[in-house]
Amino acid sequence: MNFPKGFFANGVHCGIKKNGNKDISVFYSKKPCIAAGKYTKNIFKAAPVIVSRKNIKNKIHAIIVNSGCANACTGRKGIVDAEHTCDIIEKEFNVKSKNVLVASTGVIGQYLPMDKISKGIKKLSHSLTFSLSNSPISAAQGIMTTDTTVKVQSSEFRVPAKGEARKGRQGSKVTIWGCAKGSGMIEPTLGGATMLSFILTDAVITKQALNKALTLAVDESFNCLTVDSDTSTNDTVFLLANTEAKNKTIDTGRDFKIFSDNLTNICVELTKMLAKDGEGATKLITINVKGARNKSDAKKVGKVVANSPLVKTAIFGNDANWGRIVAAVGRSGIGIKPDKLKVSFDNICVFKNSKPTKFPEKEAKKIISEKEVPININLNMGKETAKVYTCDFTGKYIDINASYRT
Amino acid sequence: MNFPKGFFANGVHCGIKKNGNKDISVFYSKKPCIAAGKYTKNIFKAAPVIVSRKNIKNKIHAIIVNSGCANACTGRKGIVDAEHTCDIIEKEFNVKSKNVLVASTGVIGQYLPMDKISKGIKKLSHSLTFSLSNSPISAAQGIMTTDTTVKVQSSEFRVPAKGEARKGRQGSKVTIWGCAKGSGMIEPTLGGATMLSFILTDAVITKQALNKALTLAVDESFNCLTVDSDTSTNDTVFLLANTEAKNKTIDTGRDFKIFSDNLTNICVELTKMLAKDGEGATKLITINVKGARNKSDAKKVGKVVANSPLVKTAIFGNDANWGRIVAAVGRSGIGIKPDKLKVSFDNICVFKNSKPTKFPEKEAKKIISEKEVPININLNMGKETAKVYTCDFTGKYIDINASYRT
Repeated sequence: MNFPKGFFANGVHCGIKKNGNKDISVFYSKKPCIAAGKYTKNIFKAAPVIVSRKNIKNKIHAIIVNSGCANACTGRKGIVDAEHTCDIIEKEFNVKSKNVLVASTGVIGQYLPMDKISKGIKKLSHSLTFSLSNSPISAAQGIMTTDTTVKVQSSEFRVPAKGEARKGRQGSKVTIWGCAKGSGMIEPTLGGATMLSFILTDAVITKQALNKALTLAVDESFNCLTVDSDTSTNDTVFLLANTEAKNKTIDTGRDFKIFSDNLTNICVELTKMLAKDGEGATKLITINVKGARNKSDAKKVGKVVANSPLVKTAIFGNDANWGRIVAAVGRSGIGIKPDKLKVSFDNICVFKNSKPTKFPEKEAKKIISEKEVPININLNMGKETAKVYTCDFTGKYIDINASYRT
Repeated sequence: MNFPKGFFANGVHCGIKKNGNKDISVFYSKKPCIAAGKYTKNIFKAAPVIVSRKNIKNKIHAIIVNSGCANACTGRKGIVDAEHTCDIIEKEFNVKSKNVLVASTGVIGQYLPMDKISKGIKKLSHSLTFSLSNSPISAAQGIMTTDTTVKVQSSEFRVPAKGEARKGRQGSKVTIWGCAKGSGMIEPTLGGATMLSFILTDAVITKQALNKALTLAVDESFNCLTVDSDTSTNDTVFLLANTEAKNKTIDTGRDFKIFSDNLTNICVELTKMLAKDGEGATKLITINVKGARNKSDAKKVGKVVANSPLVKTAIFGNDANWGRIVAAVGRSGIGIKPDKLKVSFDNICVFKNSKPTKFPEKEAKKIISEKEVPININLNMGKETAKVYTCDFTGKYIDINASYRT
């Protein structure tokens, strides 16, 4: 997998997780990066979110992330601990504290074990001196909580090189790499769970373009994801760009489009991985909404269906119980015309003209029994669309969450 | 259990349910009743809802209810079937079709088996001729779907008798009796599951007062209930008053207050029974919200907490994981001040001043391990309150709903 030039990433175990798994990760660039961030809209913002929102105004050298403890709902002490984490990075990585972003995920309401954090950062700093230790996969592992899979995605493309002639150009290779974690407490409104994603690129790009590209990407991806409708106090997406690709600065136009499309694709793929690995999930469900009067309506209908426990349990049970989908659309609160609604499992229409169709039950069951289930909803009222991603709802979700803290 | 004078109720098996359980019930009064009704706000209103909303403008003699088939999303044919059901009552009970209310609950998207309905109504009509067959409990059983308990409640009180002197009065005995069903697809917004409730009284009362009393009662009870946030296409509450108590007409003032309070108590008790018997539930959870700026905020916060799968699974696991409650409050979308929020399990405060308290974990666990768990949320921003009722979330809910249709 491609990894952008000039970045170092690694994850190690520092003792927060009792099972010995990696629990602290760093993403570091010697060259200063411009950075863009998206955060939870939960009123109770975790301490690391508060500290990172302040620091992101500066150039960034490092992101430090721990799992196993969210440092959320921890009052003034929580903020001091998050700031102190940046201070340890300052000392160990020889960068300024104000140039560090911090993120946490895990149990809410517990204080950060600062001795362990300090130990972990020292380990990471030590590994930095060995180039073989550059291990993006380890970094992606270090941010996991109840995740069962590592979620990474990358993309490589060419944009014009700095000072390159228009004709005969070869361009500069730009790489974007991203990782994400999260499997419960997920409905990001970054706009979520603790949903964390860290994206790195070596592109040369203006801060304005970086922010715009991230907003576009997040709106089509993480913001269209829901596992259980619970929005976390810690959700964070960071995007760093360190200019190592030496391309002509990306700002608007065709180059922006290329960058933006690649970034969006990475975020959509990470979003699908998150949905597939939703707590206890056995399937990825994609709600394709068409024919809405506006984007907001389209997303809202998709979210209500995606969050319906009855729809999610029916899909788990391989049951083409479309009535639950129609009922969910009907309570979504947007103005719809009942006789215009069309509902299909993939290409099998099950409901239109206000009544059931005579659909082949066996074929519908086959579609629903697959690992990826597309539910198509056409409101037939306009031209706007949305794709919302979720998973099925299983007994394992209950098992995981009835015993998470203990 | 007291039952109002002049009403006949019974439930029998007519063949809709495969397991032989009762699946059709009638509530009948020879004397015409004034009636009040509350219906689902889902855009896809089931055929019986559409027909009943029309008929309720008239005096009412009977409510006919079937379980096992919701007659929802069934188009024009569904409405014809619901009307035909009223026609059968007309024939068998010697009342006019327009004086009949109809309700259905069960699988969405299937047509009513009219032959079975007809058979059932004949059985019910036959039983009417035997006074011993007056069986409100059978009627309450006939409306059950995944319910595991019969839900009935009654109340008896005195109001002035017609023409009675103010002094030395003994008054007339008035009885209110109600039943309810519902255990999944429940978040009434009557306002939703299929949540059905039928309430009968022998009071003499004006139509205006009857409507007002029902609105007040439903707002404090069924509208404060959520099992899984799914609002049904069929939710219905009917209240019939047949004047058999011969009291002085209830309209406003003290007599209205007595009637209204008794009705509200019945609806609240039925609501608690519904929450306790939520699909797969092991506990009743009451969210007591205090200190809200307005009623709507209070209810909204209560509903978001009550609908949080993470809160509900934690309570199932006997885990005082209060962070999930704080996170749910924080995403509720109402304006709150984080440093003012106080969260308690019963009398044990776990969070205030933006940080955890040092609470006795064992005692908190004891509270959460009980069959009834009170979660107290004080926003400390105003004087409005709300109580919201829900249940814990268990593996059994998944089992029930992954296989409901099959």
